[in-house]
Amino acid sequence: MPHESILLNTERLHARMSKLRLDAIVATSPENVTYMSGFWALPQWIRRGPQAYVVWTARGDGEPEIITSTATLDLIADQDIWIERVRRYGTFHVDESAETGTDPVCRRQMELQAQPDHGDALTALVTSLRDAGLTRARIGIDEIGLMPDQLTELRQRLPDAALLPAADVFRDVRAVKTEEEIARLARVAEITERSIDAALAVARVGASELDLARAFHTQTVQEDALPVLGCIGFGERSALMNVQPSRRTLEQGDVIRFDVGGRYRHYRADIARIAIFGEPTREIRQKHRALLAGVERACELIRPGKRVADIYAAAVETVRREGIPHYRRNHVGHGIGLDGYDAPALTQTSEERLEAGMVLCVETPYYEAGRWGLQVEDMIVVRADGAERLTATSGDLMLVTP
Amino acid sequence: MPHESILLNTERLHARMSKLRLDAIVATSPENVTYMSGFWALPQWIRRGPQAYVVWTARGDGEPEIITSTATLDLIADQDIWIERVRRYGTFHVDESAETGTDPVCRRQMELQAQPDHGDALTALVTSLRDAGLTRARIGIDEIGLMPDQLTELRQRLPDAALLPAADVFRDVRAVKTEEEIARLARVAEITERSIDAALAVARVGASELDLARAFHTQTVQEDALPVLGCIGFGERSALMNVQPSRRTLEQGDVIRFDVGGRYRHYRADIARIAIFGEPTREIRQKHRALLAGVERACELIRPGKRVADIYAAAVETVRREGIPHYRRNHVGHGIGLDGYDAPALTQTSEERLEAGMVLCVETPYYEAGRWGLQVEDMIVVRADGAERLTATSGDLMLVTP
Repeated sequence: MPHESILLNTERLHARMSKLRLDAIVATSPENVTYMSGFWALPQWIRRGPQAYVVWTARGDGEPEIITSTATLDLIADQDIWIERVRRYGTFHVDESAETGTDPVCRRQMELQAQPDHGDALTALVTSLRDAGLTRARIGIDEIGLMPDQLTELRQRLPDAALLPAADVFRDVRAVKTEEEIARLARVAEITERSIDAALAVARVGASELDLARAFHTQTVQEDALPVLGCIGFGERSALMNVQPSRRTLEQGDVIRFDVGGRYRHYRADIARIAIFGEPTREIRQKHRALLAGVERACELIRPGKRVADIYAAAVETVRREGIPHYRRNHVGHGIGLDGYDAPALTQTSEERLEAGMVLCVETPYYEAGRWGLQVEDMIVVRADGAERLTATSGDLMLVTP
Repeated sequence: MPHESILLNTERLHARMSKLRLDAIVATSPENVTYMSGFWALPQWIRRGPQAYVVWTARGDGEPEIITSTATLDLIADQDIWIERVRRYGTFHVDESAETGTDPVCRRQMELQAQPDHGDALTALVTSLRDAGLTRARIGIDEIGLMPDQLTELRQRLPDAALLPAADVFRDVRAVKTEEEIARLARVAEITERSIDAALAVARVGASELDLARAFHTQTVQEDALPVLGCIGFGERSALMNVQPSRRTLEQGDVIRFDVGGRYRHYRADIARIAIFGEPTREIRQKHRALLAGVERACELIRPGKRVADIYAAAVETVRREGIPHYRRNHVGHGIGLDGYDAPALTQTSEERLEAGMVLCVETPYYEAGRWGLQVEDMIVVRADGAERLTATSGDLMLVTP
């Protein structure tokens, strides 16, 4: 079956599994299930509790398998999924009709529905591992998607297996993106920038944060992305790091801070821009320029092999030297992908090094409570020859005429 | 401090805690933290991993407390929260300025920031329980928001406490809504219905499922709600129970199935309607009428004290009698609130009874693979004198002229 896209970095997964001597690895969280298989399991994405898994065996040790509820088999049939084997659990009633066979999606759904029902999610997982001969194996379990009692029960039902927490293995594998992932991230970055433009297009005296948020999210959904992060704050509210849009209306001289990003085909954006409604003060210009210089310095240094901690140090030092001597910050960025905070985190204490194919948000936020918050955040890809920006606009101050 | 709204059903919570002899109960999942306190902790809502808690002690046993990361204190300060005590953990840099004191939100944020840092989420929770004298207590823990290793660690660090899983206690408490919750659910139901109308307004030959989805979500965000559930399918794709909008374009006679609902101030909608693009066949009319009759029969029977299993039986029998003799269904509805599937579930085997203040989605979906899916789903409140509809439109077939 040809696939338009593979999200999974198969080489990196197998390298990590081999290093940890894992016979299999099991994805349980929505991000990792989608990542491993292409399967977006709606109930798992919009609620906590519904379970879908991917069991991936070591190279040469058999086929990977998706485990999901019967109520989601239509999504398996309709999506571009690169895993053939599916194990279902639970009852869901869909009637066959004379016309079922003529539509390939419905036909595939009914084929899957005709397979045995494995009862419940955990039973299906246990039988999958048993059928693969893995009852005495070393198995990495993405622990984040399971409910606590499920992990306990899994240990009881597979007493001879070594079940190792593997959420961090998935984070590590996902840190280096495939080209399909980068294409989606580039698209959602563009959508987010256009959504900022759409929000600023309604900026006028008396317009509220909510007015700008509506315009922002409208552009996002018009481009087939979904709203996720929508921090838009004016004036003193721009200093609230997680500011949620309110009825506060625009006044001359206000800072407008955006820390925003939607989700497009499951991939996240996270971009920050500062607009000024009117004329910026000299202090705002200077401090913003310092923050932008910090991001630019970080981007200059980005290349494969570079220590993350060095990027952190250079960004913070630059901001301090260029205009905010007391600048302090836990991190100056993070990976982004299916999750808004993928690996690596750009911190002072990290021992990681950059690798080609990482996609990073590089950011230098600065908050003065009661006055304003300023922030530059860009999305970039680590390429062999340096940082490739996914954002089309620079992080310069955006001036809006009242 | 006056509060515009309390989501929590305090009486019901204390009754359940008393019945289970709980000295305290701890919310850990985003829904339950918001429910108990009014606090919407952004990182916890958009990602898995970030932790915020509410510790609620038995009546007369001290004040409840919110536990959250320092990086979210602005949200505490800016939101309408009915818990005064906050325990923070972790580092986040916000600078004070001469103007901090003039803005009440920033002032509150900096007051909270000036409190001690309790290190990490679990340490903050353990010290909170210790400070409340609960190290040997019976404590209900909402297990769904914790990572598996966190529950294990909590047991190790509180070896003399009885830690009981309590996610089901929260589900049970949340089943009976307060008036503020009902008001939000009514609003999101209205928004969802208007979004269906907006989608149908762009229905024409050649319009795609994606075109209708864009119009749907645009209306939703224009009314300050966020997209969550957006199943919109045409023709044979309407038979896919979780259908995600595609490029499939409208043709004469197509069924258009909506199973949709956004989130407004954290509260969900879930409504289904069927439109016909052109003239419905006699079979579609008849089967749809049977499904609608099932919902209407269920709604007629709804009142406090009624057995859920009886509602199920009456709805299924009605659908069978009125036109789909082979009709089968796991449930004919479910509660709705902060979660899309609140308690109770309207199943054959439930031993629950309805109570005044429950908000239910009553639904009778029917899928014929390869042909179409038909569905009626309404949102109602259980009142002393019966079902009060939150939907303005009937579930009748909506006829769209090509």
